Amino acid sequence: MKKMNFRKYAPYPSVELPSRSWPDRRITKAPIWSSVDLRDGNQALPIPMSVEEKVAMFQLLVSVGFKEIEVGFPSASATEFAFVRRLIEQGLIPDDVTIQVLTQAREHLIRRTFDAISGAKHAIVHLYNSTSRLQRDIVFRKNREEIKAIAVEGTALVRRLKDESGVAGIRFEYSPESFTGTELDYALEVCHAVMDVWGASEENKIILNLPSTVEMSTPNIYADRIEWFCRNIKNREAVLISVHAHNDRGTAVATAELAMMAGADRVEGALFGNGERCGNMDIVVMALNLFTQGIDPELDFSDLPRIRETYLRCTRMEVHPRHPYAGELVYTAFSGSHQDAISKGMKAQPLSPEGLWAVPYLPIDPEDVGCSYEAIVRINSQSGKGGVAYVLEKDYGIQIPKWMQPDFAEAVQAVADRTGIELSTDQIHDLFHAEYVKLVEPVILKKCHISWDDEDLQRNDEEATLISAIVQMKEQEFSFDARGNGPLDAFVKGIINASGLEFSVDEYAEHAIGRSSGALAIAYIKIACADGRISFGAGIDSNISLASIKAIVSALNRLP
Amino acid sequence: MKKMNFRKYAPYPSVELPSRSWPDRRITKAPIWSSVDLRDGNQALPIPMSVEEKVAMFQLLVSVGFKEIEVGFPSASATEFAFVRRLIEQGLIPDDVTIQVLTQAREHLIRRTFDAISGAKHAIVHLYNSTSRLQRDIVFRKNREEIKAIAVEGTALVRRLKDESGVAGIRFEYSPESFTGTELDYALEVCHAVMDVWGASEENKIILNLPSTVEMSTPNIYADRIEWFCRNIKNREAVLISVHAHNDRGTAVATAELAMMAGADRVEGALFGNGERCGNMDIVVMALNLFTQGIDPELDFSDLPRIRETYLRCTRMEVHPRHPYAGELVYTAFSGSHQDAISKGMKAQPLSPEGLWAVPYLPIDPEDVGCSYEAIVRINSQSGKGGVAYVLEKDYGIQIPKWMQPDFAEAVQAVADRTGIELSTDQIHDLFHAEYVKLVEPVILKKCHISWDDEDLQRNDEEATLISAIVQMKEQEFSFDARGNGPLDAFVKGIINASGLEFSVDEYAEHAIGRSSGALAIAYIKIACADGRISFGAGIDSNISLASIKAIVSALNRLP
Repeated sequence: MKKMNFRKYAPYPSVELPSRSWPDRRITKAPIWSSVDLRDGNQALPIPMSVEEKVAMFQLLVSVGFKEIEVGFPSASATEFAFVRRLIEQGLIPDDVTIQVLTQAREHLIRRTFDAISGAKHAIVHLYNSTSRLQRDIVFRKNREEIKAIAVEGTALVRRLKDESGVAGIRFEYSPESFTGTELDYALEVCHAVMDVWGASEENKIILNLPSTVEMSTPNIYADRIEWFCRNIKNREAVLISVHAHNDRGTAVATAELAMMAGADRVEGALFGNGERCGNMDIVVMALNLFTQGIDPELDFSDLPRIRETYLRCTRMEVHPRHPYAGELVYTAFSGSHQDAISKGMKAQPLSPEGLWAVPYLPIDPEDVGCSYEAIVRINSQSGKGGVAYVLEKDYGIQIPKWMQPDFAEAVQAVADRTGIELSTDQIHDLFHAEYVKLVEPVILKKCHISWDDEDLQRNDEEATLISAIVQMKEQEFSFDARGNGPLDAFVKGIINASGLEFSVDEYAEHAIGRSSGALAIAYIKIACADGRISFGAGIDSNISLASIKAIVSALNRLP
Repeated sequence: MKKMNFRKYAPYPSVELPSRSWPDRRITKAPIWSSVDLRDGNQALPIPMSVEEKVAMFQLLVSVGFKEIEVGFPSASATEFAFVRRLIEQGLIPDDVTIQVLTQAREHLIRRTFDAISGAKHAIVHLYNSTSRLQRDIVFRKNREEIKAIAVEGTALVRRLKDESGVAGIRFEYSPESFTGTELDYALEVCHAVMDVWGASEENKIILNLPSTVEMSTPNIYADRIEWFCRNIKNREAVLISVHAHNDRGTAVATAELAMMAGADRVEGALFGNGERCGNMDIVVMALNLFTQGIDPELDFSDLPRIRETYLRCTRMEVHPRHPYAGELVYTAFSGSHQDAISKGMKAQPLSPEGLWAVPYLPIDPEDVGCSYEAIVRINSQSGKGGVAYVLEKDYGIQIPKWMQPDFAEAVQAVADRTGIELSTDQIHDLFHAEYVKLVEPVILKKCHISWDDEDLQRNDEEATLISAIVQMKEQEFSFDARGNGPLDAFVKGIINASGLEFSVDEYAEHAIGRSSGALAIAYIKIACADGRISFGAGIDSNISLASIKAIVSALNRLP
């Protein structure tokens, strides 16, 4: 094995945080959500959204319930500018929704940004400049004071242009960009300077967004930074602490969650984690994580398939089959023990105390997000009898009795092992018919007439059922009349007598398939021969008596 | 907005853990890795791997450096059994690699499992039974003692069969399955009972695997559980604490990382997070997270494209374009400011102290995982001048001077805005030629002869270059001879004199494209007219003098 050159990388610094408190806290309510789908998300697309697609995405976000939506970086491209104008001029922004626009801290861009939002009742002007050591040194070649001056001057201009506009609904967000690469004390110093210039107060709160622009550490360290920041910021009540987490280490959702415990008030993110490189914090996942802890997510993801469909169409991105809550494989279970447990859990769910959701392996009820149970159990060579039984019952109303499930599961597994592919419920249903119901060799029921002797019935005679049948077994044909306490009993006695084959019925079950008056009946049977052979069979007929006789014939046909 | 019925879910319980220590700890070395690709990963595939594909995956895992590989659940399917036999009988298991086999705690399955590993020098027999309250109540309908007895009896049988086999290299792993749904004190009680039966000691360590079978909480609570368990387990030195995290809340990587801080010795997971439902903890991501903190990952992911390719082929799954480290979009930057910063960072990297990686927006050097820089910068309507300049320099050796970059970026952005799609480097290169180099209207250079007056040169005359040219401008043709201190100077003087158009050369730059003796030269120019118009041009020729004259013609052609 080749050694990778790990010495090329330095560990991320820890935070001095005596008696940290966040690990003892729990999230008890949803944050203020801010969608950056139309900005950070759009910016990272190989084919950015058209104005039409942006409008569709905006309307989707509104329908989900976002109250703050970053709609673009209008000073950076003609398309984004046109889109913001269209939202405003066509009145597409509901009164309770605030658009947010990003701008660098440069005069002509800030002015252009104000041109873009002209006429909007509410807007958040989101100013950023990079404050990280690396960017100060390598990209901007400016010292701490000079970088701070960029933020301060930009903020002063935003304040002036807001005053000139006379629009009270203009709010202000500042991001020390690359916060994760910025020394904490310096980030605080810049934010304090910006707060002063903005005149932040409890009535005129400033949004300070502390982005994990590049995810650089385990999420607990980011949480430490947020707690440190919340502790040390002056005038905490004049500030909304916002987080914006990227997913470079695959832990953006954890980062935002732990940051909330550490004091963050507001969370920026995107649907399905769209955004630069490895994406942004996924708001669908974080919101549904809250939901499954009994917390109102304050967003409506009850129709996830619709949301997903619009997302895919507008962004041309993918949602991975294993994407939490939304992937096409996440409400499935292939393994036998999982299938069995889910099946039992579903049955027990109506009895759960206070109706609390309690189904093994399913952390959420798929119906709560508009998904159906259909795909939960899929069958391959790894699947067990519980799963097979579950899908047949769910999709076809066939309730294979427990004592017969292993027999059929073996047949399914043999096919799955041979073909190596997943079996659909249809295929399993077909297999059930081929394996039991449709067998006509070597035993054929050629005639079967059932009648009751009225006199015997009135006498309470136990053998009141008369059967008259012709059965062909291999080359021989047996014709017999027999009597029993029911059709099954009569038929078994008759065939044993006629053929000389000694067997007994060990198990028997039957039920109707469906609930209509024309429903079919299905009978299941297990027979055991005197020579030790056992066999299972099933029969379907509109007449339940005939179904049970067919089941016997099926079992005889399947004798090894 | 519809309210979702969040009251249907209960919050996950907190852990009583006075003075927890994990948030103060750092990960300083890689865990013992265990791949479950061939079991948990395979089990969750719509089309499970064939034996051939399993062999290919096994060999991939060995080449990556895994020393413990869970190869299947051989008692559960014929394919898995055949695969394990093949590994052993064909000698495919290196001496330093231990295969691991999963089994339920049932006698016939345990016996079949020992049949499967017969002949292996080393093996980990991995026994599990579900211990969660929900599964005890709903699935098994057994009480705590009865469930514990299943684990104890299974362990006793494994111990007996190991003794009978006489193979010292057989080790033992026990999982209280659904640990995240199990009361901590009960999980501990079961594990203690199992340890006793196994006779766990410092020399005969037991692996206790505490799975996040279903991810049910923020990762810090799982870490609390692991720290609680490590504190309370008797005979800690006789135990390897293992974690196996599922990704139902999108935080499996964070869960495993925080669990390591909390005391876990061993981590199970799968490449690219394959596994039931939302998948398993992604070992690629966790290992590279360690790597980028300066920790030896003890796995070799230096050729991620090869690993990914084999993975895709064997599993028929996908790797999302934004998958950390491995997705096709993760080493790209679309936004102008990111592109500019990356470009500067790449240039400064050779000067970085101790060679430490320090490029903005790239938490890892793509070359360290076998990816190239090529795709880092992609251009769309959101891209800025830095990115455009970067790709042209990198792919074509064209170093557009800083003063000319905004002019070309505007041209690129106009096309990107119009077409709405991403531009390839090729398209950008073509656009550069179309915009500057290939222009032949309205100004055409019909003849250009450059000579030097030897006598003047010897006299150090400043105007020793003679030019003789014919230039067509719209309908008019100008023929002129002119003198200057170089070809450019002479040509400019000549054309001003002949045409009457007043302009000056404000900026000029040139360089060779490529390093061969036959390299072309490129010249860039900015002209300013007396009437205030400015224009940029570029010319390419094997003769640098002619390239600069062509650049003037280009700029004249582009005059607004």
